[in-house]
Amino acid sequence: MNLDPERDLSFARTLNAPRSVLWECWTTPKHLMNFFVPRPHSLVACDIDLRVGGKFNTTMNVDGAHIENTGVFLEIINGKRLVFTDGYSEGWVPAADPFMTAIIEFEDDGNGGTTYTAIARHRSAQARQTHEDMGFFDGWGTVVTQLEEYAQTLGR
Amino acid sequence: MNLDPERDLSFARTLNAPRSVLWECWTTPKHLMNFFVPRPHSLVACDIDLRVGGKFNTTMNVDGAHIENTGVFLEIINGKRLVFTDGYSEGWVPAADPFMTAIIEFEDDGNGGTTYTAIARHRSAQARQTHEDMGFFDGWGTVVTQLEEYAQTLGR
Repeated sequence: MNLDPERDLSFARTLNAPRSVLWECWTTPKHLMNFFVPRPHSLVACDIDLRVGGKFNTTMNVDGAHIENTGVFLEIINGKRLVFTDGYSEGWVPAADPFMTAIIEFEDDGNGGTTYTAIARHRSAQARQTHEDMGFFDGWGTVVTQLEEYAQTLGR
Repeated sequence: MNLDPERDLSFARTLNAPRSVLWECWTTPKHLMNFFVPRPHSLVACDIDLRVGGKFNTTMNVDGAHIENTGVFLEIINGKRLVFTDGYSEGWVPAADPFMTAIIEFEDDGNGGTTYTAIARHRSAQARQTHEDMGFFDGWGTVVTQLEEYAQTLGR
């Protein structure tokens, strides 16, 4: 994907796990529960309808507060790219104030691992900065570390 | 689709043209040129990539001023439902200030014609009202009349 340095946040990592396992982790609620939120916070509910326009709803426990996020999948390229946003809830219902669009890409690294790219797109440079100040790199980076560790326990 | 009377604008019409022809009209630039903008205004350019996330870009001539709109398709159910928005441009680039999401649905009416439903969804009740005040019902209604007349000239 082309990146806009003014409005996008992104990073890439090489993960020691196969692409197919990482994809399954990212698209299955019982797997997402294990890595999607940086510990000690946690995911307490996850509701997925894995189709374009289908729901991707999550509830996080952050210091005891339950934070609900509603979203939808915008694009699903099996095993390769997942795009989702909080800009809609299921049924193409627009959110009042959409925050971001996430693009997660998975590519074989040629050594049995996966090149993992995460992109968060924003409507404005200000929203990008807000997200960076919220701890985007730490938070999303921790999630990827948790994902890699969890994927390895699946032993495939 | 479920409607939200606070934030959606919608209407349905029965058109004397087959669903397959209306679908072709809505998804082919050379056909869109003939009905997409209420006359005497006109469409002067139309660029379509008919896939989820693909571009739906148009340029209108309104009293001599060229007005460019960029958008993408969100959902394409062949012959039945077309969803698009100005909330993204191609490549999942978020718009700074998304205005609406349009849902066009086509159903056989059982008599060789088509029940045509148009829904415009907005982020707020205020945006809905702005769109209504801009002349939504007149404008989109005229477009449907033009579509029906044009589809009938295709003679299928």
